[in-house]
Amino acid sequence: MSDIKKQIEELSKLNPELFGKDFLLTWEKSDDDLKAVLAIANILKDMRSENISARVFDSGLAVSQFRDNSTRTRFSFSSASNFLGMEVQDLDESTSQIAHGETVRETSNMISFMADYIGIRDDMYLGEGNKYMREVAQSLDEGFAEGVLPQRPGIVNLQCDMDHPTQAMSDLLHLKNTYGSLEALKGKKIVMSWAYSPSYGKPLSVPQAVIALMSRFGMNVELAYPEGYELIPEIVEMSEKFAKESGGSFKVSHNMAESMKDADIVYPKSWAPFHIMEKRTPLLLKGDKEGLKELEKTALAENAKHKDWEYTDEMKKLTKTGQALYMHCLPADISDVSCKAGEVSATAFEASRIDTYVEAGYKPYIISAMMFANKFEKPAEALEALVARNRKRFGI
Amino acid sequence: MSDIKKQIEELSKLNPELFGKDFLLTWEKSDDDLKAVLAIANILKDMRSENISARVFDSGLAVSQFRDNSTRTRFSFSSASNFLGMEVQDLDESTSQIAHGETVRETSNMISFMADYIGIRDDMYLGEGNKYMREVAQSLDEGFAEGVLPQRPGIVNLQCDMDHPTQAMSDLLHLKNTYGSLEALKGKKIVMSWAYSPSYGKPLSVPQAVIALMSRFGMNVELAYPEGYELIPEIVEMSEKFAKESGGSFKVSHNMAESMKDADIVYPKSWAPFHIMEKRTPLLLKGDKEGLKELEKTALAENAKHKDWEYTDEMKKLTKTGQALYMHCLPADISDVSCKAGEVSATAFEASRIDTYVEAGYKPYIISAMMFANKFEKPAEALEALVARNRKRFGI
Amino acid sequence: MSDIKKQIEELSKLNPELFGKDFLLTWEKSDDDLKAVLAIANILKDMRSENISARVFDSGLAVSQFRDNSTRTRFSFSSASNFLGMEVQDLDESTSQIAHGETVRETSNMISFMADYIGIRDDMYLGEGNKYMREVAQSLDEGFAEGVLPQRPGIVNLQCDMDHPTQAMSDLLHLKNTYGSLEALKGKKIVMSWAYSPSYGKPLSVPQAVIALMSRFGMNVELAYPEGYELIPEIVEMSEKFAKESGGSFKVSHNMAESMKDADIVYPKSWAPFHIMEKRTPLLLKGDKEGLKELEKTALAENAKHKDWEYTDEMKKLTKTGQALYMHCLPADISDVSCKAGEVSATAFEASRIDTYVEAGYKPYIISAMMFANKFEKPAEALEALVARNRKRFGI
Repeated sequence: MSDIKKQIEELSKLNPELFGKDFLLTWEKSDDDLKAVLAIANILKDMRSENISARVFDSGLAVSQFRDNSTRTRFSFSSASNFLGMEVQDLDESTSQIAHGETVRETSNMISFMADYIGIRDDMYLGEGNKYMREVAQSLDEGFAEGVLPQRPGIVNLQCDMDHPTQAMSDLLHLKNTYGSLEALKGKKIVMSWAYSPSYGKPLSVPQAVIALMSRFGMNVELAYPEGYELIPEIVEMSEKFAKESGGSFKVSHNMAESMKDADIVYPKSWAPFHIMEKRTPLLLKGDKEGLKELEKTALAENAKHKDWEYTDEMKKLTKTGQALYMHCLPADISDVSCKAGEVSATAFEASRIDTYVEAGYKPYIISAMMFANKFEKPAEALEALVARNRKRFGI
Repeated sequence: MSDIKKQIEELSKLNPELFGKDFLLTWEKSDDDLKAVLAIANILKDMRSENISARVFDSGLAVSQFRDNSTRTRFSFSSASNFLGMEVQDLDESTSQIAHGETVRETSNMISFMADYIGIRDDMYLGEGNKYMREVAQSLDEGFAEGVLPQRPGIVNLQCDMDHPTQAMSDLLHLKNTYGSLEALKGKKIVMSWAYSPSYGKPLSVPQAVIALMSRFGMNVELAYPEGYELIPEIVEMSEKFAKESGGSFKVSHNMAESMKDADIVYPKSWAPFHIMEKRTPLLLKGDKEGLKELEKTALAENAKHKDWEYTDEMKKLTKTGQALYMHCLPADISDVSCKAGEVSATAFEASRIDTYVEAGYKPYIISAMMFANKFEKPAEALEALVARNRKRFGI
Repeated sequence: MSDIKKQIEELSKLNPELFGKDFLLTWEKSDDDLKAVLAIANILKDMRSENISARVFDSGLAVSQFRDNSTRTRFSFSSASNFLGMEVQDLDESTSQIAHGETVRETSNMISFMADYIGIRDDMYLGEGNKYMREVAQSLDEGFAEGVLPQRPGIVNLQCDMDHPTQAMSDLLHLKNTYGSLEALKGKKIVMSWAYSPSYGKPLSVPQAVIALMSRFGMNVELAYPEGYELIPEIVEMSEKFAKESGGSFKVSHNMAESMKDADIVYPKSWAPFHIMEKRTPLLLKGDKEGLKELEKTALAENAKHKDWEYTDEMKKLTKTGQALYMHCLPADISDVSCKAGEVSATAFEASRIDTYVEAGYKPYIISAMMFANKFEKPAEALEALVARNRKRFGI
């Protein structure tokens, strides 16, 4: 409890500007915004461990909209909503269509008459997901301004084509807690590496989210991938800039083993090549199934050339004292476990399995924290009031 | 707040008999019943705006059963339930089968052991939807009488083949608030007009609900449609009788432009012709896919003859001072927006778009009000107690 | 209320060891465990009737995982969760695959960061369902031990290949309340009889659950089926042993009419033959559709030979004073109602229809009781505190 109070005091020194704002891209947020979310998440996590209720809604509605499959993020979102007192209502739209214009305007308002928060995953189409979220945001702005909505629900990006902020922020909180502070991350080498997977077409949002966020905290970020597996160029350039500004460094390389040398943290993960994803969007929009099949064939053939991009015990030995922290957003493609050849060898994964679970465990609290900061202008004071209220989450 | 108290005082003058009753058809309800629902809905809406919690269930279960697709009504139902403190559990039955007899009796009881309220949408089959709701109601009556159920859950009709009471009541509340009072509606001309849509087979329940409800408040109701697009005759006759009794009038016409002359309010909307819907039910029951395809072809061909039934700026100019209030239950088929040719032109819709959102925004509160009146014998006193309790919906 | 207090006093004399334990198989539980669940269920049911809230979670999450279709158990689980203050989040996995190893370990942890309780139905594959639940349990044990999870969520078996404890416990509570006490069940003859159904492949878990549970309370259990319709041998042997130990008896017979003689209670229900279910699992695992079709043909042909295994008015006349209590887990296959020829004749079912509804009505409370006993070390004291708190479930 004394620890919670100390954390609240630390939080009160920050000047976040998250009140009433959506959380769509980490790079639109200030350092204080990010630090505040991390701090609130840790405090909420500790509160739950100490059986202190964080219920701030006597009734409340959180809307989830998953335009792609999800188990982890779905549970994180509903857990976060429930912890604050909101019930989840899912907007179960067909995932195959891209809505625009009046459809988006109208639906956004129709689901929001009594909604407090909206979470959206839309990561299938490069160039579309984040755009869609902004269209929803604008529709809500208009609905609120016109008196249609009694409040403006906040929006959280649960993964788009550009960023996956709840994932990357969970990853960062894991790093902060592992090394003791954000300060301690300075000078650490983190490798975001492509890795082989038998599947094709995984979104670019996780690697993009990781490099764009970690580069802001003085880390030495290395992005490694076989040529052809570029990410969105603007995000890579931005990460480079962030690294410079924060006193870290940013490097792109094309040799997995080389990149691992002296790494403190490694994040080996498959993603689709940018140029393939770019070609995919118009084909999907046209509904050109033949074209998509052809494209997939090309991509898989390209993919198959890089089976050696597997994170193994040998790779691990190359890292700093052979003990780099292994990260993954899960589920990982584990060789001889979930597939024949994958992103990581069974022994390398097993050695860090529990770590990856701990990493994932921050997500519900990161989402709670984003919601909390959106609703309370002074989050530190609000948390203090909750601790003082001291209502049991469970008990009589 | 003083306004809320005044509204509660007004409500206390009414003698509704809604306690413990289902809400299946507006024409089974007294004027006081309808006025009480409108009043409660407005009060609950204002309470939410003033952050006063309306939670009356510490735990509670609302069951939704959608035998047809729905987004707007689904969200309205879950919002309404949540606002009063009930969690929603969806009964996800196959929508293609019509259940009868023991299946209905049994399922109705099985889902109701701890249910407080049940909402049903069943609008696909003419002659079936409302019948089904009554079968559920009877099953619950028996279950309660026999001691199977500790309470008799209330039922609300979320759209059937005959009526769509939560829609029409939202529409009426929109009119009441737009014009200041129900009194002010007397003598107003409202046109419920058929309009062209590229789709076929939309339920008759919205136009039927609108004419049967608006005719009770002294309005001059005009029902306009191309010949062949009749509604259920008994409901049209009833509306005629209601109009006479309430000091209004009722007229059927077959020329859209003519009908618009001097209209205060217009409601242009597509529906399927009655005789087609009548033929459809036995075909659906038999599973006669060939027959259905044939019928659809006939209907679409018939439909295509009436593309001129579109609500345009020119049509609007014909209405009273060219400024008639445009209503729609949404989503509208907007020409050049959601389809090539539809119910309403893009400019005519855009001019009233926000109005239609406001209209839709009453639905969650109408449903809450129906639930509230079902559970509290003296709703005015109960609302007074809630205001006095003054618990925050959101906050610490 | 005085009755509730008396029941709590009775409960306080028992020494259940359910705290922090999963409820997977009744035969792993002590007599006091079973008696405590029955007692808590009755108390919670009475509390709800007297409008006393049993909410013990200010916020809380219950996860349901249905790897087979379910309406009754789904509603029971969500009702039970809601009554204690937990919201349900469904884990909607594909039902066709059997997960193992890392997939189970990982998913179990990912859904449990903020979960308080998990309910699982997995009854499709003989030899797999219960095994799966134990794998989930182990994964949660590990996650909790490793600090991944802040609590160890309890697990309740909502039907597996071996047992259906929430069903059999509801059945037992129905018997206890019908005859006044568990003592009164001693010496009563209960017949668990196979009955004909036009469908094939119903799980063995209900009959197994019934014989394994009823044999523990001094009843004379008779298991009747046409040769070839054996149950899992170990469970039958165990039931025999239980019957001996409890002062009852256990008998297997192959003539429905014979078995009915002098029966106090009858439970006629279809199930698939054990040897067919055994062959089915490897075929399902291999995805051998041809083999499955062939097997189904054989099973249906075998089935068709036993249409005379129908519980009729004539069968009923053979029971004690012609008035045996008829039980069924519902839905029953009723001849000339839900199918041409089924498990029970229309008149025999109709005479006991309401009884079967009452029987089913215990399930939400049995599940609540299992959850309650898992979370409170001293359930009697906790219930006493709830009664003393005297918060209204519904009201202002």
